[in-house]
Amino acid sequence: MFIERLWRAIDAKGTPAMVGLDPRPDHFPEEFLVKGDAEACAKAAIAFHRELLELIAPKVAVVKPQAAFFEQWGPAGTKALADCCAVARELGLLVVMDAKRGDIGSTSEAYAEAFFSGNGFPPADALTINPYLGEDACRPFLDAAKKHDAGLFVLVKTSNPGAGFFQDHGSPPLAERVAEMVASWAEDWHGESGWSSVGAVVGATRPEELARFRELMPRSPILLPGFGFQGGTADGLQAAFDSNGHGAVVNSSRGILWAHERKDLAHLSGWKDRTQAAVNEMVKQLSALVPSPGFTRNS
Amino acid sequence: MFIERLWRAIDAKGTPAMVGLDPRPDHFPEEFLVKGDAEACAKAAIAFHRELLELIAPKVAVVKPQAAFFEQWGPAGTKALADCCAVARELGLLVVMDAKRGDIGSTSEAYAEAFFSGNGFPPADALTINPYLGEDACRPFLDAAKKHDAGLFVLVKTSNPGAGFFQDHGSPPLAERVAEMVASWAEDWHGESGWSSVGAVVGATRPEELARFRELMPRSPILLPGFGFQGGTADGLQAAFDSNGHGAVVNSSRGILWAHERKDLAHLSGWKDRTQAAVNEMVKQLSALVPSPGFTRNS
Repeated sequence: MFIERLWRAIDAKGTPAMVGLDPRPDHFPEEFLVKGDAEACAKAAIAFHRELLELIAPKVAVVKPQAAFFEQWGPAGTKALADCCAVARELGLLVVMDAKRGDIGSTSEAYAEAFFSGNGFPPADALTINPYLGEDACRPFLDAAKKHDAGLFVLVKTSNPGAGFFQDHGSPPLAERVAEMVASWAEDWHGESGWSSVGAVVGATRPEELARFRELMPRSPILLPGFGFQGGTADGLQAAFDSNGHGAVVNSSRGILWAHERKDLAHLSGWKDRTQAAVNEMVKQLSALVPSPGFTRNS
Repeated sequence: MFIERLWRAIDAKGTPAMVGLDPRPDHFPEEFLVKGDAEACAKAAIAFHRELLELIAPKVAVVKPQAAFFEQWGPAGTKALADCCAVARELGLLVVMDAKRGDIGSTSEAYAEAFFSGNGFPPADALTINPYLGEDACRPFLDAAKKHDAGLFVLVKTSNPGAGFFQDHGSPPLAERVAEMVASWAEDWHGESGWSSVGAVVGATRPEELARFRELMPRSPILLPGFGFQGGTADGLQAAFDSNGHGAVVNSSRGILWAHERKDLAHLSGWKDRTQAAVNEMVKQLSALVPSPGFTRNS
């Protein structure tokens, strides 16, 4: 199951850190900087991401390509997305495709096939999906995840300042209704460890909020966005984790991708040293969430 | 403005009919049928859609490519999507990209640029978006629509059986809260006719429900999905239209795309004759919604 692959990969690297791949050519390291058309940008993105992935693969277990930043270059960009996923897979990284797709019936099925089947893009290990269209509309994603042994991260609560605008609507708040759907799916489909491959995106801004969603979705891995640049820290994330260090992946995109621009890392020469340092720093900050070396896990 | 282009195009063709492009190779007319890899399917999709678009362009004003069905073939599919959009534009058809995208901040901006800027895909006239992430997360789509003179159709109420699962949550129902956001945007950004380029997808199942959404969003064009195969008819759609025949576009996908499979059209030889007949039938069924020839519009 995806969830077992996920925890195994996280155990092997000793960190729940996840790196988001959001290619923005104006923030590439100098040697990849490009001004030009979509084709040129897409090529630069592949070149940069190939080296970046090689650099981070020994340290982290999971990457999260953001489909939008590739899609902005049209077909050339989706080719670059496919290439980046292929490189990540070759390096043994798990790929969580952050596409936030959502539609109805056979259309949801087509999106799921696009990312899970390997006929469209190299098969992703998991996909983010948007629940607005309802349980029946999301179900083809669940069926496809089962069929292709993949995972889902359903948007429950997002990390933007206005996340509550619709997600807090009603009583209980909408996000909790979505969490109930996730929990129900996870209850019906989980491994021997008790964990399910049906996860959730939870951009909780307060530890109590995260604890509440953990309580509502006891079997689901949580994708925690916004570490670093979006303002999160390891403090307050504990509620998502069990004593084995399982329970969540913690994403940083710009904190790693833009490491070469960080003033606090300016004493290091070259983007590679700065990126390494940024990854090491993130792993260190998250170390309180995972067991110390020598700890024996319950499985 | 998009909305003026839309009504002008609809007036010229005399019908609010919209044809959805959902390429499914197992339902292509015989001469395009294909078994093979993604590349082969994508090529067949372009070949079929080129002829289909030429066939329908004299009759209808708008097409709605469904991104998922192209994306299922990965990069080859997105190339086919771009090619189909280019053909539609050459034929003078308006393109509403049905991608149901939604994300936060700069990521929403990247999706909007992908479909509006012309750097990624040929510029779409409008895009469908998913509101779950909140008003602030949707706003980059609004800003991009203004910048590129495009339109939006925000998912308010979808046409699947379980649409209400989340969309009816709370009091007022969530979908009405989304409609309020749409109305507020439309109030701030509309043309001299009073109509706005900020529209909504409303898969209403009852005439009263459609009337309610029309009341909540008086300035917004409504995308009515599910005509034909998904069970809708022209009856009950009147509430979305004003006396000028403006107010909505009515989509049919499979009813047109799979016309060659329709038993009721089997007396006609060849997929082109059947497709023509299906389009003519749809236009006729919708004729009650638009003024008769000779009618003088108020603008």
